Amino acid sequence: MSNLTATQQQAWQALSQHYEAFQATKLSELFAQDSQRFAKYSFEAAGWLLDYSKNHVSTETIKALVNLAEACELPAAIKAMTNGVAINNTEQRAVGHMALRIPRAQNGGEAQQFIVNGEDQMPLVHAVLGQCSRFANAVRSGQWLGYTGQAITDVVNIGIGGSDLGPQMATIALREYWQKGLQLHFVSNVDGHDISETLERLNPATTLFVIASKTFTTQETMANAHAARRWFLAGFENNTQSSSQNIAIGKHFVAVSTNAQAVQAFGIDAANMFGFWDWVGGRYSMWSAIGMPMMLAIGPERFAQFLSGAHAMDEHFKAAPLQRNMPVLLALLEVWYRNFYKTNSRCIAPYHHRLRRLPAYLQQLDMESLGKSVDREGQPLTRSSGTVIWGEPGTNGQHAYFQLLHQGTDVIPVDFILVAQPDHSIPDQQRMLLANGLAQSRALMVGRNLADSGSSHKTFIGNRPSNTLVTQHLTPESLGALIAMYEHKVFVCSVIWNINAFDQWGVELGKVLAKGTEQLLMPDGQPSEAAIASTDSSTLGLANYLRAKSH
Amino acid sequence: MSNLTATQQQAWQALSQHYEAFQATKLSELFAQDSQRFAKYSFEAAGWLLDYSKNHVSTETIKALVNLAEACELPAAIKAMTNGVAINNTEQRAVGHMALRIPRAQNGGEAQQFIVNGEDQMPLVHAVLGQCSRFANAVRSGQWLGYTGQAITDVVNIGIGGSDLGPQMATIALREYWQKGLQLHFVSNVDGHDISETLERLNPATTLFVIASKTFTTQETMANAHAARRWFLAGFENNTQSSSQNIAIGKHFVAVSTNAQAVQAFGIDAANMFGFWDWVGGRYSMWSAIGMPMMLAIGPERFAQFLSGAHAMDEHFKAAPLQRNMPVLLALLEVWYRNFYKTNSRCIAPYHHRLRRLPAYLQQLDMESLGKSVDREGQPLTRSSGTVIWGEPGTNGQHAYFQLLHQGTDVIPVDFILVAQPDHSIPDQQRMLLANGLAQSRALMVGRNLADSGSSHKTFIGNRPSNTLVTQHLTPESLGALIAMYEHKVFVCSVIWNINAFDQWGVELGKVLAKGTEQLLMPDGQPSEAAIASTDSSTLGLANYLRAKSH
Repeated sequence: MSNLTATQQQAWQALSQHYEAFQATKLSELFAQDSQRFAKYSFEAAGWLLDYSKNHVSTETIKALVNLAEACELPAAIKAMTNGVAINNTEQRAVGHMALRIPRAQNGGEAQQFIVNGEDQMPLVHAVLGQCSRFANAVRSGQWLGYTGQAITDVVNIGIGGSDLGPQMATIALREYWQKGLQLHFVSNVDGHDISETLERLNPATTLFVIASKTFTTQETMANAHAARRWFLAGFENNTQSSSQNIAIGKHFVAVSTNAQAVQAFGIDAANMFGFWDWVGGRYSMWSAIGMPMMLAIGPERFAQFLSGAHAMDEHFKAAPLQRNMPVLLALLEVWYRNFYKTNSRCIAPYHHRLRRLPAYLQQLDMESLGKSVDREGQPLTRSSGTVIWGEPGTNGQHAYFQLLHQGTDVIPVDFILVAQPDHSIPDQQRMLLANGLAQSRALMVGRNLADSGSSHKTFIGNRPSNTLVTQHLTPESLGALIAMYEHKVFVCSVIWNINAFDQWGVELGKVLAKGTEQLLMPDGQPSEAAIASTDSSTLGLANYLRAKSH
Repeated sequence: MSNLTATQQQAWQALSQHYEAFQATKLSELFAQDSQRFAKYSFEAAGWLLDYSKNHVSTETIKALVNLAEACELPAAIKAMTNGVAINNTEQRAVGHMALRIPRAQNGGEAQQFIVNGEDQMPLVHAVLGQCSRFANAVRSGQWLGYTGQAITDVVNIGIGGSDLGPQMATIALREYWQKGLQLHFVSNVDGHDISETLERLNPATTLFVIASKTFTTQETMANAHAARRWFLAGFENNTQSSSQNIAIGKHFVAVSTNAQAVQAFGIDAANMFGFWDWVGGRYSMWSAIGMPMMLAIGPERFAQFLSGAHAMDEHFKAAPLQRNMPVLLALLEVWYRNFYKTNSRCIAPYHHRLRRLPAYLQQLDMESLGKSVDREGQPLTRSSGTVIWGEPGTNGQHAYFQLLHQGTDVIPVDFILVAQPDHSIPDQQRMLLANGLAQSRALMVGRNLADSGSSHKTFIGNRPSNTLVTQHLTPESLGALIAMYEHKVFVCSVIWNINAFDQWGVELGKVLAKGTEQLLMPDGQPSEAAIASTDSSTLGLANYLRAKSH
């Protein structure tokens, strides 16, 4: 924020003044003043309804926020991303997750392009998607066989961060569409309990491993991949069939990676390596070959619907006026709360049990993108940027942390996510679920005063804001649109704060230090003096304690 | 804080002055100044090492914080809890989770008592524990048979909040000790997907349901219990064996409850109702019959070890001087950060995959206990109370939200939880796991300056605090001690803030509003004018939209 243009300074200033005048106005007053508030502050896009009426906003607020977005040249930023400009400036890369969702041209129409360094990337995108689809179909149809000639019954995705959270969250969400007889598993943690617990239930002869690591060097993923390989070969050697080890590995391991040499050294057939590009960031990669577990679970056609739902949100994002643009409004509300109301976290409350991993997914998407302290030019920010994202599904959260949302000393905005139609046949429970979601957002807003409650312990301040997002049914399309919406929301925040949402330098230092720290934990002998000198008494003391307690 | 004694005012004042003088001192300076910092700021209790040296504390800080604790009469508060005083003053109840951990007298020694309203509760506690143990042993040994004469293979715990999060977290944590051939499942959400997905894998003839609801009226739990009952009877009726419906239900449903009438009306034999008492709060109840799923999974003897680990922490908490008291120090550090450094959340990072539900468990324990805005007398607080608790297991978090911990604009204290010995046989991965945990806490502390990083995008401010907790092995004992430690930490915070940690009035309003909101969602006809008048245009608009989209 150090290098604000005059227009930007004016826009922030106007918001400050508006905040001072407006902040005493209660949400319930806004509703009392305007019977049309819901109609005015809600709209649909790409299969989702956003109701943002239970927020601290008036026509003037939205105007001032949109004015800030314009001062920050948001429309140009959206165009730059669309046009393959290297907006990831610290890594000199374009940002192409929207391109991953562009459909093939149909009926002789003109295809959308995504030009990076003068070259249209869409043929590459669609070629890999075709390769992935053929592979997924072969596994799903039982045509792809393991080394004993049996079809695959279990798929284990080994990846971490962006190679895990997205596909895992979406695969759980779309459980209704899973192929019968094919189970999906996800292993991410370097903690050996994760892979051990997963493998102990599986049969090597019918298990397929998808090793997802762009560089094929990610420490956690490679450790788990090698553990899986050892387990597989142990099972294989116990088997009497004679077939060479490498041929067998090739039938049970595939890779999502770009490092062909390392993939082949591992024993994976280069034909079964599914690639992507440097303009696909880890936390934006589930639309690429990283989505392989989804394709295996729900099939390539439904995966195409997932892409198509996201594409519908992309088109909305690119075309809708800012004041009626869902990701833009959600982002501006975030900025409004973060920088003026000084909020420090947002609670994500999906009222759908299959969206239970959405908060963990959004933690990476949002916090890794927006947890920055310098602007795009490297100048220290003078305003707060990204906040903590957290949550558990409703109604569970109501019996856990909602107490603090209602009666704690901090104001914490909430996103309620509701789905009208369930995939089960207990309509009463669906009605209870939705009634609870609506009741919570209303309770947060209206509160309860002393006269009604009879005790200050039972009084609720109320006046606590929330968004409500509603879709008809949790399908590949609606899920795709929801995720794309949050992606774009994060991007818009980054434009307003002038930060790079696509790098993550903050994860580097820990990786470097972990290498040195391993030396301190070696079972035999003392760590070297150099290793000791390069650390602190706490790390050294803890390492000594852990070493002593390991035996 | 409105009614502070002179001594309390002085203690807060002294901390303010100390903060002003101390806050510019960096963590790395504290380490540079004192080579013995780890030794001074770490100690063991009940099988856990706490290293709190990577916090913004000096000898003076601890002295001033302990002084505050004394001014708030913490020792007397601990005694009052121990002695069965009705410290849950808004509900006029004693608080007895520590009593649930008191062992039977051994070798003719004198038994500890827990006197509530003049009566020792310990005989009741041990009687129910005995009843639970006999039942658990019968199921585990295969002596307890289902209606077709088969042994139980699957147990489904149906409960929510305190009747779910504790037993679920602990059962997952202690997976190493599960009885072979007995699978545990947990259903909590009123969302019908939760129960439907669970039941579709199970066989009614070998499934046992534990319905956990103190009042046997909890909406979510009873809805799921009735869904389970319908599913069971459908399976039963398809079965050709002739045996009366109620006898069959009695073999497959038991209750953890105190409402004998409702339990029997459901079809459960009163002999299979396991009770507890009004001095056991929901979120403090896993030590009681609510721990039934744990007893079934790991057996009554190991459950006794779990209690004994907690009891060891209780004894430490009651006896250790405040400045060397683990829960007390953790609480004082929380107050220090929350009220002086103005932190708004704490990240829980367990470096053990089986502790992956610990953050969700602690969300309820901490946020439901401390998310209050009035003091014990009902006066508005003038300081911030409870914060957001969140997290995912390491190393997963490192590839997701750690970016924001390192480079975000907010300071977020972290609890690192490390376990020396794993229950798997991949020592390299265990070493990587621990090295990563140590490296992250060091990276947060030391940061990286511009000279070393070469770019302000790669610079880390550092100076970010964390606790590290270490135990030798994740066992029933060490888990019990860990949970008791966090319980007492929460209690100490509540004493300092003078709030009631044992009520949760903030969850009431939503429940009331949900009943009315259900009317708005009925499929046929329009909601009544009264129902419409009693709500707001947002809730009504959303209800109309959901109704329209439900068909």
